Amino acid sequence: MKGDLVIVGLGPGPEGWVTPAATAAVAAADVILGYTPYVNRITPKPGQILEASDNREELVRAQRALSLAASGKRVAVVSGGDPGVFAMAAAVYEAVEANPASADGVDIRVEPGVTAMLAAAARIGAPLGHDFCAISLSDNLKPWATIERRLRLVAEADFVIALYNPASKARPQQIKQAFQILSAVLPAETIVVFARAVGRPDEEIDVATLAGAADMPCDMRTLVIIGSQATRQVKSPDGRAWIYTPRSEQRR
Amino acid sequence: MKGDLVIVGLGPGPEGWVTPAATAAVAAADVILGYTPYVNRITPKPGQILEASDNREELVRAQRALSLAASGKRVAVVSGGDPGVFAMAAAVYEAVEANPASADGVDIRVEPGVTAMLAAAARIGAPLGHDFCAISLSDNLKPWATIERRLRLVAEADFVIALYNPASKARPQQIKQAFQILSAVLPAETIVVFARAVGRPDEEIDVATLAGAADMPCDMRTLVIIGSQATRQVKSPDGRAWIYTPRSEQRR
Repeated sequence: MKGDLVIVGLGPGPEGWVTPAATAAVAAADVILGYTPYVNRITPKPGQILEASDNREELVRAQRALSLAASGKRVAVVSGGDPGVFAMAAAVYEAVEANPASADGVDIRVEPGVTAMLAAAARIGAPLGHDFCAISLSDNLKPWATIERRLRLVAEADFVIALYNPASKARPQQIKQAFQILSAVLPAETIVVFARAVGRPDEEIDVATLAGAADMPCDMRTLVIIGSQATRQVKSPDGRAWIYTPRSEQRR
Repeated sequence: MKGDLVIVGLGPGPEGWVTPAATAAVAAADVILGYTPYVNRITPKPGQILEASDNREELVRAQRALSLAASGKRVAVVSGGDPGVFAMAAAVYEAVEANPASADGVDIRVEPGVTAMLAAAARIGAPLGHDFCAISLSDNLKPWATIERRLRLVAEADFVIALYNPASKARPQQIKQAFQILSAVLPAETIVVFARAVGRPDEEIDVATLAGAADMPCDMRTLVIIGSQATRQVKSPDGRAWIYTPRSEQRR
């Protein structure tokens, strides 16, 4: 008898953002696989096996998960945020495509989650209130030229832009290049939000303009949101401020 | 003493997709406001007041919510999916901008949720596995020319495209126009997913090509995902099929 494989989104961090369906899927698993920081969020029940592995090992992890499920195990692969956004769901289907027989009779499903940009947006106001896009800035899996071209076109189209994987120790400069590309199209006063470790104890949300964005700290735990030409700051008389994009096209 | 206002995402439908934080926010409210179908999902506790109102009344609802909160009530405004994506969070900040005094001393926060495109993607595989965008096809709040231009540019940039509000009784033709615009840029065999009423008893997921997309049924409860040139179908030997977009740029 074949087992099953569920690819689960654990949300950005806090328990309050893990859906009951995700919690149930993890609880029902015999084996739970994932990138170490995500697996570390699971408290295993008696008998449950946790298999943590490194970043960049997504395809091997997916193959291992399929193989365990084919052997009759109930398998959960965990991702932070939503598993379908720059995460493990695509890796599992890549493994299925490379070896369709590995999925034969294995029940595969995805449990969605709150992806990072939604949580980041919620913390600062409603910057994703109008048309927006999500781009992974990592060029591990696509040419940098593609990223450049996409940034230019969505800036021309005046989308709000959410950047996943904006920087890492190996790629500290690309976010600065991205801001440079965007500056050729967008005004210097375009609002840029840096949301770091959203939902975690060390959460930090900063707001800059595009002109000053390259000087802001940015790492692999940061989600960057670049506003459209309608994205603005709104203040209450008591001094609090929020960033939002109106539903209509009115510019600042 | 001022009350507070939380704008809550209830997810696409099923209880399993409502985050514990959203559930807690609704439970703590004195008054719950929202579009009727979303308010109808709430079972009020003794003493809780529900105020359902019509679609297109977002700004009035936002003003009413701010006013109730200013009078000391704990107020929840509920949205389906995520409140920051084409939903009530932007409307509340629009109301704040129009009348900053209405937010004076009122605690305002957003509780994120699973937005429709994530749930739709999860049901069919992982079509949002690579760079993607979200566009509302409703021209109630922006000119149709803007929508056309954005569709053309993101098609040129080879994004996966999620279309919110693709059609309504008043706008049955615009989704067909959108497919026509996209057909000028994208190949006829581009994959199009129609996800209707995701998570509900009458859920229906259909897959077509761009060439045949205009003939597919589509209404205001449908979320449409148009694949990039890398989005593909993958099959298991037992005949099941999924749609996904690989993490790398490899074309079909």
